[in-house]
Amino acid sequence: MKKICILGATGSIGEQTLEVIRGQKDDFKLISFSSHKNYEKTIRIIKEFNPKYVAITDHDNFKKVIEYCKENSLEIELLEGVNGLTTISTLDEIEIVVTAVVGMIGLVPTLEAIKAGKDIALANKETLVTGGELVINAAEKYGIKILPVDSEHGAIFQCIQGNEMSNINKILLTASGGPFRGKNKSHLLQVTPKEAISHPKWNMGKKISVDSSTLVNKGLEVIEAHWLFNIEYKNIEVVIHPESIIHSMVEYKDGSVLAQLSNPDMKLPIQYALNYPKRGNLIINQLDLFKVSKLTFEKPDLKTFEGLKLAYDAGISGGIMPTVYNVANEVSVNLFLNNKIKYLEIVDIIKDCLSAFKNEPITSVETILEAETNVKKYIEAKRNLREV
Amino acid sequence: MKKICILGATGSIGEQTLEVIRGQKDDFKLISFSSHKNYEKTIRIIKEFNPKYVAITDHDNFKKVIEYCKENSLEIELLEGVNGLTTISTLDEIEIVVTAVVGMIGLVPTLEAIKAGKDIALANKETLVTGGELVINAAEKYGIKILPVDSEHGAIFQCIQGNEMSNINKILLTASGGPFRGKNKSHLLQVTPKEAISHPKWNMGKKISVDSSTLVNKGLEVIEAHWLFNIEYKNIEVVIHPESIIHSMVEYKDGSVLAQLSNPDMKLPIQYALNYPKRGNLIINQLDLFKVSKLTFEKPDLKTFEGLKLAYDAGISGGIMPTVYNVANEVSVNLFLNNKIKYLEIVDIIKDCLSAFKNEPITSVETILEAETNVKKYIEAKRNLREV
Repeated sequence: MKKICILGATGSIGEQTLEVIRGQKDDFKLISFSSHKNYEKTIRIIKEFNPKYVAITDHDNFKKVIEYCKENSLEIELLEGVNGLTTISTLDEIEIVVTAVVGMIGLVPTLEAIKAGKDIALANKETLVTGGELVINAAEKYGIKILPVDSEHGAIFQCIQGNEMSNINKILLTASGGPFRGKNKSHLLQVTPKEAISHPKWNMGKKISVDSSTLVNKGLEVIEAHWLFNIEYKNIEVVIHPESIIHSMVEYKDGSVLAQLSNPDMKLPIQYALNYPKRGNLIINQLDLFKVSKLTFEKPDLKTFEGLKLAYDAGISGGIMPTVYNVANEVSVNLFLNNKIKYLEIVDIIKDCLSAFKNEPITSVETILEAETNVKKYIEAKRNLREV
Repeated sequence: MKKICILGATGSIGEQTLEVIRGQKDDFKLISFSSHKNYEKTIRIIKEFNPKYVAITDHDNFKKVIEYCKENSLEIELLEGVNGLTTISTLDEIEIVVTAVVGMIGLVPTLEAIKAGKDIALANKETLVTGGELVINAAEKYGIKILPVDSEHGAIFQCIQGNEMSNINKILLTASGGPFRGKNKSHLLQVTPKEAISHPKWNMGKKISVDSSTLVNKGLEVIEAHWLFNIEYKNIEVVIHPESIIHSMVEYKDGSVLAQLSNPDMKLPIQYALNYPKRGNLIINQLDLFKVSKLTFEKPDLKTFEGLKLAYDAGISGGIMPTVYNVANEVSVNLFLNNKIKYLEIVDIIKDCLSAFKNEPITSVETILEAETNVKKYIEAKRNLREV
C-alpha cells in the first residue's frame, strides 16, 4: 500500500491522480492533499478518500472546510496556508508526493519532501524550471526518485528504462504545435484568449493551453528535460508532431530511437509514475494505430514561436534566467487572459525581461523567490510607466 | 574481448556482422566462421580476420581453401561438411554464436552451441520457426541468451528492456507490405521473379525478398516472436508500415506502446545483439524524422496475402506444422524463382501441405528433419504426378 500526498488535488492533474488512486484502491492510499479555493471538490475528496491531513491555502475555503468537518465529526487534521503544503508533504508515513500545484508554490514543499526522503511524482513544471539544480542535487543527496508526471517526460522516462544514460545521444521532445501551428506572426496579431486556449489535442487549464499555443510550454519542458535527464540543451530537439500520439523519443548513440506512444491522456504518465517500476492496468483508451493511420513530423517554426527559442537561451544561461523566463511568461499570460495585453506581447515581455535581468547563480530557494518578485515588480513598473 | 563464431559468414547478414566486428576491433574477435561455395569471400575473411577455425560445407570450395592455406602457410583449422558447423559453434573459447546461415541447416549447430553454453545471436529464422520449443527450452535449461538479429525482433527486444514480460499486452510486428502492397490476387497472377525480388525498402537475398512480397516472411516472424517472447499468437498483430522506420512495437497492459525506430539497416540489430546489454557507436545513417516527415499504418490484407494467415494457423497448431509451413514455402519459392510455378502457387502449395500433413509433437530434432524430408517428398511427388 503506497501512501500518497497530493499537492494540488483539485486541479486537472490532481483529479486525474485521484482517478488513478480510485482504480487501485488496494495499492494506493491518499494520506494527505492540498487544495486552494474549491470547496466542493475539497469536500468531495475528503468524503471519498478519507485522508488524515488536508492543507488549504485559501482562508475562506479553510474556514468552510473546518466548519464542514466539525458538523460531520470528521477527524481530519486541517492546515491553513502555504506552510501546510510542506507539513503534509513531509509526514512520516508519506512515501510519494504528487506535486500537482500550479506555479512556483510547489518548489518549497517539494524540496522539503525530498529532504524528508519522499519520492516525487512531479507534475509541477516550475519546480524544475526554476529550481532544477537544487532539486536534482537534493534528489541525489537524499537518494529519492523524481518521477515525471507529464506525457513528454513520462515518455522519455519509459524510453530510457534498461538503458545506460551515457548511451543517450539526443532527446526528441514532441509537441502538437498548438492551435496556431503553420501560422506566422502577422496571423497572430489579433489572437483572442478564447482562440489561444482551444488546444487541438489536450484538454487542459487555461494557462497551460496558452503556453502550448506559444510553444513556451515546450520551452519549459526543454528546461525540465535538461534537469531530469541530465542532457545538454544542444541534445534536446523539439519535434512538431500534430497527432500527439508519440509523446517523445530518445535517440541512442548507435542510431536507435525509442518512442513511447499512446492516446493522449495524462492518466497514463500519472499511473506509470505511481506504479513505477511496475505498470498498472489499462486506464486509458487503447491506441488504434490503424485508426490513427498516420503520424507526421515537422520542424518547429522558431521565428513565429520565438518563446521556444528564448527557453533554450534561458536554459543555457542557467542561474536565475529560467526563473525570469518562467515568471515573465506567467505574468504576461495572465495579462493576456485578462485582455490587458495582446497575444504577441507575451513573448515580447519574456524577451524584455531576459535582457533586462542580470544573471546570478542559484544558491538557495531565496535566490529564486527573489528573482520571481523582481520580475513581477519589473513588469508592473514598466506597465505603470506606459499607462501614465 | 568477446569471442565470436559466425555460422554463414559470406551471406548478407554474415557480411554485415563482419562489418560490425570490423568497427569494434577492440571489443570483438572472430574465432571461427562457416562458408559454403563462395571461395573469394572465404579467403577475404580469412585474410582480414585471421580466424582459428573455418568450416566449409561445399566440397570444392573446401579443397580450394585448403590449397590456399597450404600455399600461404596459414595455420587455420579447416573443417568440411555440416558437422563442421557444430564443431566451430561449440568451441570452448567461443562466447557468442551468430547464426546467419539460411535454412534449416542452422538448427543443429545452434542447439549444440546452446548446450555448450554459448549465447546465440539469431538471424536464422528456421531455427525458431521449426525448432522453437527445443531451442527455447534448451536456452532456459543452459541459462544462455537468445539475442534476435533482425530488425523486428531486435526492435521488440529493445522495447521490452526494463519491463516485466508479464506486463506485455500485445506485440505489434511491423511489415513494409512488400512490393505488392495494395494489389489484389488478380494483379498477382502474372508476377515474375524479378518483380517479386524488388523489395521497396530492404536490400536482401532473393528468397527472403520473395517471402517479403508474399508476407510469408512476416508469418515466419510471427512464429519467431511467439517463441522468443513467449507471447500467444492472438497477441501478435502485424501492422503494415510502408516506410519501414518503426521496426516493431510493444503494447503494455497499461496502454502504453513502445516503438523502436531507425533507418532500415540490419547492422543496427546485429550490433545491438553483439553489444547487449551495452550499445555500440553509430554504424548506420541517423534517422531524420523531418525528412521522413510521415509514418503510416494499415491492416494487412489477409485475403490477398493468405500466406500470413496460414502462418498463424501453423503456429497455433504447433508441433511440426510450422516446419511444414516453412519447408513448403522454401520449396515453392525455389520453384517460383526457377520459373517452375506461378507466384500465387507458392501459397497454394503451402496451404495444400498444411492440410495434407497430420500434426505431431516435436520430441527431438529428428522429428523436425523428418517432417522436412516428408514435405519435400510430398511436393515432389505431387509435381511428378502433375507432370506425367
